[in-house]
Amino acid sequence: MRGIAYWLSAVVVLTGVVVCMAPASGHADGQAAPIFGVTIPPGYRDWRLISVAHEAGDLNDFRAILGNDVAIRAYREEKLPFPDGTIIVRLAWSYIASEENNKVFGRAQSFVAGAPINVQLMVKDSRRYAATGGWGFAQFKDGKPADEAVHKTCSPCHESAKARDFVFTHYSP
Amino acid sequence: MRGIAYWLSAVVVLTGVVVCMAPASGHADGQAAPIFGVTIPPGYRDWRLISVAHEAGDLNDFRAILGNDVAIRAYREEKLPFPDGTIIVRLAWSYIASEENNKVFGRAQSFVAGAPINVQLMVKDSRRYAATGGWGFAQFKDGKPADEAVHKTCSPCHESAKARDFVFTHYSP
Repeated sequence: MRGIAYWLSAVVVLTGVVVCMAPASGHADGQAAPIFGVTIPPGYRDWRLISVAHEAGDLNDFRAILGNDVAIRAYREEKLPFPDGTIIVRLAWSYIASEENNKVFGRAQSFVAGAPINVQLMVKDSRRYAATGGWGFAQFKDGKPADEAVHKTCSPCHESAKARDFVFTHYSP
Repeated sequence: MRGIAYWLSAVVVLTGVVVCMAPASGHADGQAAPIFGVTIPPGYRDWRLISVAHEAGDLNDFRAILGNDVAIRAYREEKLPFPDGTIIVRLAWSYIASEENNKVFGRAQSFVAGAPINVQLMVKDSRRYAATGGWGFAQFKDGKPADEAVHKTCSPCHESAKARDFVFTHYSP
């Protein structure tokens, strides 16, 4: 009986692990971004939400910022600097008017996410990325990394958020 | 040895369950919304992202729409109608300009989520909510449900999305 109970519980453990890992969605073909060598983490589309944003102007995108477990824990505990292992991913879609929602509201007020634009990542590894505040950066579109010139702009831009460990996004409860 | 292995694996099982359930964040004090009797599901803030939205005009809010595992699976498999057990939660925050981001971009273009406004829920139970297309609706602010008058407006409004099982939000990859 104990043997059966052991194997049964082992099955439950494995099932639990599979459920926890969840199906990895999004692109994860292993191509590394230039300079930082960051790759797309499998299953990032299943990560929890940090917050949302909209950049108007030339970008005109809708953003969702997700974090892995280390990131979410650090945000909720208001821990700065973020610990090694933190990964923050910023998804962007085009910012479009929703005609179907506007019909319901009876006025032009509704904006939703359209086609995907790109995915950006911040990966905390204080040794590997010591020269850029402990963060590695990456931008991907359809699973392909942007070029070196794009990646050279990441760290200088994030410099202005140095007081918050180079991270712009605040957590939304 | 088998005894020890059994108890060790039992501990691992329980640990796995705890990790899977994750810390329940957000309000979950069990108050039921009028008409539909919907309560806030524990841990909803940890659910996966369906999409984002912005309602301008009088609402002027930023929205994130999250789903439980049943909802996410149905969305990804493009399954309509949504199966019983589906829960979709819409979080809303005020839509505010980000002065600190605007400084970085050098122009006024950045909008982020401000203070939380309220949380809305759709719960699929085709028997219990047969009179309203199989959906129970709820709105909460700071853990307290809105009044009956508010809840009377939910189903008639969602009627216009009948072709998509009364759900407005599309999934964003």
